[in-house]
Amino acid sequence: MEPLLVIKIGGNIIDDEKKLSLFLEEFGSIEGKKILVHGGGKLATKLADQLGIQQQLVDGRRITDAETLKIVTMVYAGYINKKIVAELQSMGNEAIGICGADGNAIRAHKRTHASIDYGFVGDVDEINDSFLSKLLEANMTIVIAPITHDKHGQLLNTNADTIAQEIAKTLSKHYQVRLVYSFEKNGVLLNVEDENSVIKEINPTSYKKLKAERTIFAGMIPKLDNAFTALQSGVKKVIIGKAEDLKKLIEGHAGTTIINE
Amino acid sequence: MEPLLVIKIGGNIIDDEKKLSLFLEEFGSIEGKKILVHGGGKLATKLADQLGIQQQLVDGRRITDAETLKIVTMVYAGYINKKIVAELQSMGNEAIGICGADGNAIRAHKRTHASIDYGFVGDVDEINDSFLSKLLEANMTIVIAPITHDKHGQLLNTNADTIAQEIAKTLSKHYQVRLVYSFEKNGVLLNVEDENSVIKEINPTSYKKLKAERTIFAGMIPKLDNAFTALQSGVKKVIIGKAEDLKKLIEGHAGTTIINE
Repeated sequence: MEPLLVIKIGGNIIDDEKKLSLFLEEFGSIEGKKILVHGGGKLATKLADQLGIQQQLVDGRRITDAETLKIVTMVYAGYINKKIVAELQSMGNEAIGICGADGNAIRAHKRTHASIDYGFVGDVDEINDSFLSKLLEANMTIVIAPITHDKHGQLLNTNADTIAQEIAKTLSKHYQVRLVYSFEKNGVLLNVEDENSVIKEINPTSYKKLKAERTIFAGMIPKLDNAFTALQSGVKKVIIGKAEDLKKLIEGHAGTTIINE
Repeated sequence: MEPLLVIKIGGNIIDDEKKLSLFLEEFGSIEGKKILVHGGGKLATKLADQLGIQQQLVDGRRITDAETLKIVTMVYAGYINKKIVAELQSMGNEAIGICGADGNAIRAHKRTHASIDYGFVGDVDEINDSFLSKLLEANMTIVIAPITHDKHGQLLNTNADTIAQEIAKTLSKHYQVRLVYSFEKNGVLLNVEDENSVIKEINPTSYKKLKAERTIFAGMIPKLDNAFTALQSGVKKVIIGKAEDLKKLIEGHAGTTIINE
């Protein structure tokens, strides 16, 4: 099977024009099949503020009402997605920008919850691997905005980490997938205060030990649990680290690599 | 050669949610290969107003400054484009929404003019027929937002009528193209005051006569000149009429059909 790189970039890169350009330069120069999933960044919140649309939070989670959905669709699937595509195209990458509605790439359903109405938030049901594979086989670089649809005409706001993971899992049927989660730290750290204490590799055995010692705790646990779920579903490697180090991350010279033994 | 329908819809449909839904129902039910090019509508102007961004007009033409480009990219390539795609997908159309940057579909250059700086307005250089054909051959319905790029990383605001025409012309190499321009009137009228006076067919000979008599004048002349240019470049038929009559337009039971003989 041919290798495929699925890379998720977060808001810290999106919000910084210079960082984003540097990242895209590295990303664009990587040979082979690749998919970029981008989050939103602060632009959507800023736009909502300017328009006087109040952000609703329930238990720290953002509620996507109709007006917010409109804004995230504009910002994520419009401005950010097309800006990235134009920049990659200028480097000779055959980039195509899509959201989950395009080609029915990502079908989702409106989140149901016993007590909270999250509004137009979507949980992923199905990845259209045949559509995505067709684009990849045509040597296209796919840029994905975290907006999905329910196949009944409703667009939905969906977590970009989840999208990256679901795509990586589903495309493992056809490709040797490496999944890169870029975030603001150098990797999983032995000591949260020390950016130089990156744990180079984590496998199920060492993960158990790190959790027992409470070296890994809080927000890092769901991230790593997700990584192991992805590995169990056929993803070959999950790498966590700084987007600025993309090439080093891929080569194993930076970040934390998570393997299933 | 297989038939292909290229349809341009304007602001009057985009701005009216109900009209748009009815139009998409008709459009979605049409069999065969099809491309929908959509304009912008008033939503972009409204958003600019809300954000306090002043529209600059020079000689009645809108200037696209950096902020305006951001807004039209969000509204056209984001909100409107994805909304249309989700609605078509709900009807079982394998719709994909793109702008000119995606797959390098439409390469343009920033308009140069002796005295006016139009800002980020693009004039079309090249249509990527191989990319568009690939999507059509995969039985996808293509939905195009009127944003192009210059292949050097710059997005550009481009006239949707021109995009529809250039696509129709270029794809005439591979398909029997019918180009439908929907606008607010029933067709080209013999008497501007009378919506029932639609001229059923115009050919080069009758066009000359209608112009000499001044039955056709002002804004209609560039529209028809463009139609004849398209026909001379291989487009089989150009049809002008109301989007609400789409099926009738295609069947020749409504609107004005322009033919090159």
